[in-house]
This record gives sequence, C-alpha cells and structure tokens, in this order.
Amino acid sequence: MTEELDKKDWRTRLHVIIFEADTRAGKLFDVMLIFSIFISVIVTMLTTVDTIEVKWHNELKIAEWVLTILFTIEYILRIIALRRPKRYIVSRLGLIDLMAFLPTYLELFMKGSKYFSVIRVFRLIRIFRILKLVPYVKQLEYLRRALYQSRRKILVFAMMVLSMVVILGSFMYLIEGADNGFTSIPRSIYWAVVTLTTVGYGDISPQTVLGQFLASIVMLLGYAIIAVPTGLISVEMSKSIDQIMNTQSCPDCGFSKHDTDAKFCKICGKKLN
Amino acid sequence: MTEELDKKDWRTRLHVIIFEADTRAGKLFDVMLIFSIFISVIVTMLTTVDTIEVKWHNELKIAEWVLTILFTIEYILRIIALRRPKRYIVSRLGLIDLMAFLPTYLELFMKGSKYFSVIRVFRLIRIFRILKLVPYVKQLEYLRRALYQSRRKILVFAMMVLSMVVILGSFMYLIEGADNGFTSIPRSIYWAVVTLTTVGYGDISPQTVLGQFLASIVMLLGYAIIAVPTGLISVEMSKSIDQIMNTQSCPDCGFSKHDTDAKFCKICGKKLN
Amino acid sequence: MTEELDKKDWRTRLHVIIFEADTRAGKLFDVMLIFSIFISVIVTMLTTVDTIEVKWHNELKIAEWVLTILFTIEYILRIIALRRPKRYIVSRLGLIDLMAFLPTYLELFMKGSKYFSVIRVFRLIRIFRILKLVPYVKQLEYLRRALYQSRRKILVFAMMVLSMVVILGSFMYLIEGADNGFTSIPRSIYWAVVTLTTVGYGDISPQTVLGQFLASIVMLLGYAIIAVPTGLISVEMSKSIDQIMNTQSCPDCGFSKHDTDAKFCKICGKKLN
Amino acid sequence: MTEELDKKDWRTRLHVIIFEADTRAGKLFDVMLIFSIFISVIVTMLTTVDTIEVKWHNELKIAEWVLTILFTIEYILRIIALRRPKRYIVSRLGLIDLMAFLPTYLELFMKGSKYFSVIRVFRLIRIFRILKLVPYVKQLEYLRRALYQSRRKILVFAMMVLSMVVILGSFMYLIEGADNGFTSIPRSIYWAVVTLTTVGYGDISPQTVLGQFLASIVMLLGYAIIAVPTGLISVEMSKSIDQIMNTQSCPDCGFSKHDTDAKFCKICGKKLN
Repeated sequence: MTEELDKKDWRTRLHVIIFEADTRAGKLFDVMLIFSIFISVIVTMLTTVDTIEVKWHNELKIAEWVLTILFTIEYILRIIALRRPKRYIVSRLGLIDLMAFLPTYLELFMKGSKYFSVIRVFRLIRIFRILKLVPYVKQLEYLRRALYQSRRKILVFAMMVLSMVVILGSFMYLIEGADNGFTSIPRSIYWAVVTLTTVGYGDISPQTVLGQFLASIVMLLGYAIIAVPTGLISVEMSKSIDQIMNTQSCPDCGFSKHDTDAKFCKICGKKLN
Repeated sequence: MTEELDKKDWRTRLHVIIFEADTRAGKLFDVMLIFSIFISVIVTMLTTVDTIEVKWHNELKIAEWVLTILFTIEYILRIIALRRPKRYIVSRLGLIDLMAFLPTYLELFMKGSKYFSVIRVFRLIRIFRILKLVPYVKQLEYLRRALYQSRRKILVFAMMVLSMVVILGSFMYLIEGADNGFTSIPRSIYWAVVTLTTVGYGDISPQTVLGQFLASIVMLLGYAIIAVPTGLISVEMSKSIDQIMNTQSCPDCGFSKHDTDAKFCKICGKKLN
Repeated sequence: MTEELDKKDWRTRLHVIIFEADTRAGKLFDVMLIFSIFISVIVTMLTTVDTIEVKWHNELKIAEWVLTILFTIEYILRIIALRRPKRYIVSRLGLIDLMAFLPTYLELFMKGSKYFSVIRVFRLIRIFRILKLVPYVKQLEYLRRALYQSRRKILVFAMMVLSMVVILGSFMYLIEGADNGFTSIPRSIYWAVVTLTTVGYGDISPQTVLGQFLASIVMLLGYAIIAVPTGLISVEMSKSIDQIMNTQSCPDCGFSKHDTDAKFCKICGKKLN
Repeated sequence: MTEELDKKDWRTRLHVIIFEADTRAGKLFDVMLIFSIFISVIVTMLTTVDTIEVKWHNELKIAEWVLTILFTIEYILRIIALRRPKRYIVSRLGLIDLMAFLPTYLELFMKGSKYFSVIRVFRLIRIFRILKLVPYVKQLEYLRRALYQSRRKILVFAMMVLSMVVILGSFMYLIEGADNGFTSIPRSIYWAVVTLTTVGYGDISPQTVLGQFLASIVMLLGYAIIAVPTGLISVEMSKSIDQIMNTQSCPDCGFSKHDTDAKFCKICGKKLN
C-alpha cells in the first residue's frame, strides 16, 4: 500500500512540476522547456539554410533528434501525470504538444513532413504561464471582445472586399490580358489583392494606360477603405474597455456592464457603491 | 374559372419559393441558387486558366451553358411570379440578375464579353437573405451613415490627394525624365499614386538623387495623411453610434449621452421617460 | 461724364461676372473657366505622351496657345475689374492665376518650363465657389484645426521618424554595402524611407541574412508606428468637432469653446441657453 | 584667491554658455552647435557618395577633422564646466556626445568605424532646448504614457504577429520551395514580414497558384490587423489625455470628466474646488 501511495505521490509531484509554475522545480522545468522549444524552432529553421546545413549537418540532426526525444518523454510524462489524460490529449495545447515531435518521426517515412514541426512555435504560448502573465491574458480579453462585438461588421467588410477584388481582377484581365502578365482571372484577382492591400510586389503590374488608370483607382480605394476596419476596431475597443473598467455589478438587478462614469445603475436606477 | 384560380395560386406559390426564404421550398431554392452562383463564378474564372482550360475544355463549356440556361429560366420565373415585374427589371438586383446570363449569349456574337459574367458575384448578396442576416444590414447602416456624414470631408480630402498626385507626378516627370521610366506626365501621375498610397510596385522608381529625395517626401506624406481618412471615419462612426443611441436627456441633471438600454440616468439615478 | 459712369459700370459688371457666381453670367463664366482649366491640364499632360504628341502635335499646340491666351485675357480682365489690383496680384490665388499662363510664354525662351503650367490644377480650387461649397470649407476648418492642435506632436513624431531613417539607413549601408545596391548613405536612407513607410519598391532590397533581419525590424516598426499619427489625428479631430459643435458663447464671460454636453459655462458657472 | 575666484567664475560662465540657452552667448553657442552637428551629419553622408567623394575628397576630410576636433573640445569643456562630470559622462546625452567624435579617431585604427558617427544625428535633440520647446516634451509625455499603458497589449500583439510570420513563412517554404526563391525558412519568414506589413518588395514573390492564394490571405490579414495597434494607441491616447485632465468630480451631480481649465461643472453649474 505504501507503494500505491508513493506512486500517487509521485504522480502529484510530477503534476506540480510539469503543469504548474509555483514551485522551484516547476519553474525550472518551465524555463528549460521554453528554452528547448526556442532552440528546436531555430534548429528546424537552420536545417533549411543550405550553407549552414552542409557545414553542420550532423550537429543539426543530433540536436533535432535529442529535442524530439525530450519532447516525446515530456508528452508521455504529461499523460502519466494526469488522472484523466483524455481531455488534455484532445485539447488544443495537447495537440500542439503532439505536433511538436510527431513530424520528426513521420520524416522517416515521408520526406518534407519534418518542417511541420515549426508548429512548435505555438508551444511558446507557455511563456505566458512562466512569466505569470495573467494580466496579459486579460489584455487579450479586451481585444477578443472588441473583435467579437464587431464580427458582423468585419464579415460585411470582408465580403465587400472579396467582391471588389473579384470584379476588379476580372476587369483587369479583360483590359491588360495575358501579354501583360494578367494570364488568368485567378491571377488577376491575386494582383487585385496585392494592390488593394497596398502590398504591391510589382511581379504583375499594369502596362496599358487604361490598366494603370484602373489600378490607380484600386490603390486609392485600398488606401481609403483601410479606415473602415481601423475605425471599427477603435470604436469597439473603446466601448469594450469602458465596460470592463467599471467592474461592480448592481446590488439590486445584478446588471454588470456599467460605464466608468456610472453612479447609478442604468437599468434599475439603484445607486452603485 | 378554376384554371384562372390555379394559375393565380401557382404564381403566389412561385413567388413564395423564389422571392422568400421562410418556407422549406423557399430556403432550398435559395441555398441551391447561392451554390449555383458560386460554382458559376468559379467556372468563369477557371476558363481563363490555360492549363485547366486545355484539359477540361468541354466540361467547363457544358457547365457554363447549363448554369446560364438555369439562370435564364430563373430570371423568366422571377418575372412571371411578379404582378408588376417592371420595377424588378429596372432595379439594381434585377439588372445584376440579367447581367448574370446575358454575357454568355453575347459571347456568341462578340468574343471576350463572356468574362463580364463575373458580375454574378454580386448575386451572392442574396446570401444575406438566406442566412436571415437582418442584423448585418443594420451594421451596414452604421457604416453607410458614417460615410454619408463625412462625405464632404472625404470629397475635400480626395480633391487634395488628386491635386497632390498631379503636381507631384509632373515634378517627377521634369526631374527624372523619360530615360528613368517617367515617360509622360500621366505615367508619372500613376507613379505618384503608386507611391502615395504606399503600394510601391517598383515598375517605375526614381534613379536620380533629387528624384529619390522628392519620392521620400511623397512617401512620408502618404504615410502621414492616411491618418486623415482613418480619423474621419473613426470619429464619424463613433458619433453615428452615439446618435443611434438614446437621444433623451435626464430631466434632473441634464446628462444626455445615455446608452440605448438605459432606463435610469447613470449620473443621478432619475428614471428616464 | 456719362462715359466715366459707363466705364465704372462696366468695371462693376465685370467684377460681378468674374469674381462672383451669383448672377447668371457670373455662373456661366465660372463654369466655362473650370472647364477650360480642366481641358488645359489634360492638354499639358497629353503633350508629354509620345504616341499622342506625334499624332496630334499641331492640335495640341493650338489648344495650348488658345487656352494660354484666354487665361492671359482673363488675368488682365481680373486686374482691370479691381479697384486695387495689387492685393489680388500678390495673393496666393493671383500668383496661381499668373503661373497658369506664364510658363507657356517662358517656353519660347527656356525649353521645358511649359510643364510648370500643370500648376493650373490649383486653379480648380475655384470649383468650391461655383458649387457654392461653403460647407466644404467649414469641413476643411475641422481638419485644419485638428492638424494645428496637434502640430507639435506631429513635429516631434516627424523628428523621430527622420532620426530613425538616418540611423537605420547608415546601419544598412554598413551591413549590406555597395555590392547589394546600398551604394551610399543617402541612398540607404532613401531605402529606409521606402521600407518604413511600407511603400517597398524593391529597387533596393537587402541580400544578406543580417540585412534582411534588420529590414524586417524596420518593416514591423513602420507597420506599428503608423498608429501614432493616426491616433493623434483621431483624438484631435474628435476634440475639435466637439468644440465646434456647441457654437454658443457664455453670456457672462464670453468663453466660447464649450463641449456639446455643456449646460453651464465651465469658466464662470453661468447657465448657457 | 582671486585666481581661485576667477577660475570659479570662469567655470560658472562656461556652464551658462554651454549648458543653458538663456543668455545671448548661450543661445549663440547652441545655434552654432546645432549648425555644426547638421553639417557634420551631411559631411559623413557625402563621404559615402562615390562621385562626390572622388571630387571633394580633401575638402570632406578637412571638414570631418575640423568638426571632430571642435566636438572634442566641446566635450572637454563640458566636463570642465561641471562640478561633478561623472553623471554627465555616463548619461545618455553624454554618451551620444562622446560617440559624436570617437568614431573618427577609431577610423585611424579600424576602417569603416567612422560611419558610426552618424549617431551625431541624435545630438540634434538639443534643438529642443534652443527652441525653448518645453511644450514639445509635454506632448511626448502623452505619447509615452499611451505607449506605456498599452505595453502589454502591444507585447501580446507583437507575439501574435511573430508567431504568424514564423508559421506562414514555413508553410510558404513547403509550398513554393527553393526554385521560386523561398530558399530557406528564415528567408521565407523574411518574405512573410515583407508581405504582412504590406511593404511588398517583390524580390521574393509566390509563383504557384496555392502560394499566391496563401499570400493573398497573408496580405488581407496584414491589411486588417493593422487596425489593432492603431485602435490600441488611439484609445490609450484618448484615455491618457482624459487622465491628464482635471480629476475632480462635481460635488453636486458627480460628473467627473472635467477639462483642465474647468472652474465650474459644465453639467449643473456648481463651482468646482
């Protein structure tokens, strides 16, 4: 029975180390983890740089495999440490953890899949916990709320933009034609996106006078309508901050989304503290 | 006489199916319609991609004609279903519906006109009805009001920008000249638009030191004045939301910026009418 | 003496026609003027387009000279119509009017100077009067006030941006060097402006890994700090509109910049009407 | 003892001239200093322009050394003029002053280091004192406060953007491959930054249909999310201005958003303390 207890203790201690960052061991584990993730992302990137790959081929391969095996062990430990590991396995965080080492094994069977391991970068989200960044998450809350509140306006705006690039791209295809690089409507739509968003690669650019005239209009349009999402987000963000800032709820009716300057509940008229 | 009644019934039923989305048949009709429009836009696009066109020439041609005939039948049904079809025919929606199939027929006489059928993309506006997106339209209302309220400022701003690109383009024509790609004033104005809107294709770019200096100023100008439309829209949008809100002022303290859901003054607690 | 009176009458009538737009003749004069200005700007542009110039050489030359002579006559009439023409001659509008025809004559002595006549485009400012656009000017007032209020912040921001492009440009010159297109510090500063303002011609672009890394930082910086002028203008614009909207001044102390929600003068406490 | 006094007097007078701008001599010194700094920055730039360097080699070299020696003397005088020069030497301003002449001497031993003297441009910050621009610094205060208040949101936003460019860059590397210019993941990340920030050099651009599709999404994303920092800064700036405003609330009606110059409540007319 002591062994049973020991095993239980061992699991609890493991949980404290791996999943929490309040003890010294837990913090050390997290710092080392973040560091390993960072290194592994860099390693994956460097294996794609020819000059470096040729020179440090073996070193990179060893680093890759050491880190992959470490991540595999960590993943197994996480599952062991949990009483009901199923929820973790199917959670977003669990899937990202799995994707952090799986591609290296898959590489043995399918060339090129190893590069998917850059998905490890998402594991850096754990940095929020190690730095005790609860306020950061609250900040995200503002943003998420503002985006959620304006989701319909954003959708309508997105549909407008999409219709515009389809129509404008098709027109440019008719005006410029294949000889000037507008070889098909999809490619012309790609050009319209490049232009409307003011990216402007210049890999395709209008050559005819009429095409340049239409392109100028597209640019001015793109230059002007960027004001719309910016205005939307500004207004919603300002509103969402106002509502989050006054955190008290009405003692009578419980309504809680009061403005910062509210002295009385706007729903039932009760004085707020 | 029963035949007369039947015919009338038939027309009413047709109207419910085609123009409304409340019955099961009406909803099904709309979903199929949206789907057909989507497919037809894709088909039109793909016919312009050489590699696909060569391989699937016949399939694309058949799909194009099937969809065109379906749209034609739908258009005729719409006219039959209405008691006074004239208003629909000359309406924006009616003209778009007509433009959705007409170009394919015109193609028989005039090559190239078929591409105009991408105008079909506008028919997707019907998606608002099928998804019962009345709130979406309300969201558009905010936007439209903000744009309408600031139409004069936008016009003044547009005139300023237009004058700037004409003057700056002409100056660059004098400074750089035809040898550096600034072959004419219209082309130099095109360059000024490309630069001021921060698109920057790079198909024409200044080569002389003076030209690069002037270009730098144009860029910084374009970078700075984008704040103007953005500021305009933000302010107007925020105002237009305020105005849609409760317009009454508190009978006791006179505070007037109440939210739409306010029943009591949030400053002094007085009940609002 | 009647002749003297006639002359005076003639001058008054001329003034009404040329400088005002309230009579029928005055309006007609203004419409024709705007039209001539528009045509003359187009003509000046077209003379620089080789293909058009070769084909329509004589027609363009005649149009240019007819318009120039018309503008000269108009300028002389304006001077005659005024009792004290000095103020008009040295005014901004007067100088622009002079610049509208002078370059064509100068062209006879100095080649290339004729292109300066595109300055005519500024004459289109008269369109404000003909369209009775007093409200438009009021709109400009908002903008001008917002810009004036934030002139110091804008200057500080401009100095920050200028220092940044000088320092960043110099660094890139050291990192990339002449072989990669960064042939001198001024040219590298030009590159920094092109990049920071997100224009991105691509005529000069970093080739080394370190250069691309620094360039990425410049881009992200440029992408982020555009928020500063936009935020500045938005806030100032919103404030300036508030102050313009409540147009009453305090009956006691005469203070006039009241907010829209002001019921009492914030300076002396007097109730506002 | 008189000599002692004289020396003290001499030091005090030196301090007044060099560190202050209230006396005539002090102002003259500052104007000349700003002018020298400006000239020296221009000289450093011009030495990198080949055509100018070849022609004016000696003149530029002499100017460079004269200015460097002047800056050295000025630096020594500053140290002499101060009772406790240590604090000045290690201050930011002191280090910049040192960096203004040190690189020229270092150039004798290490080629290329002279270009670091463009850091002189930061010395122009003294222009604030000469123009008595205290209000300018206050304006910066707004900005700094707004940036400080939103530092967490900015950090979260920056991390989101960084993750996005890493993931998107890796995907593009897999899709496009080395043949289309995406030779490595770091280079593909560089492309992602160029595209997301809407800079768009065009030195690397997608060639495959799938790549162009993903690129279009990156562009639209970059076009949309610029609203986030802009909205953040706008809101914070507006809040920071509010907070700098009068913080007292009306004793009668409780309204609290009073302007800084308010003496009476603008809502109920009560005198504010």
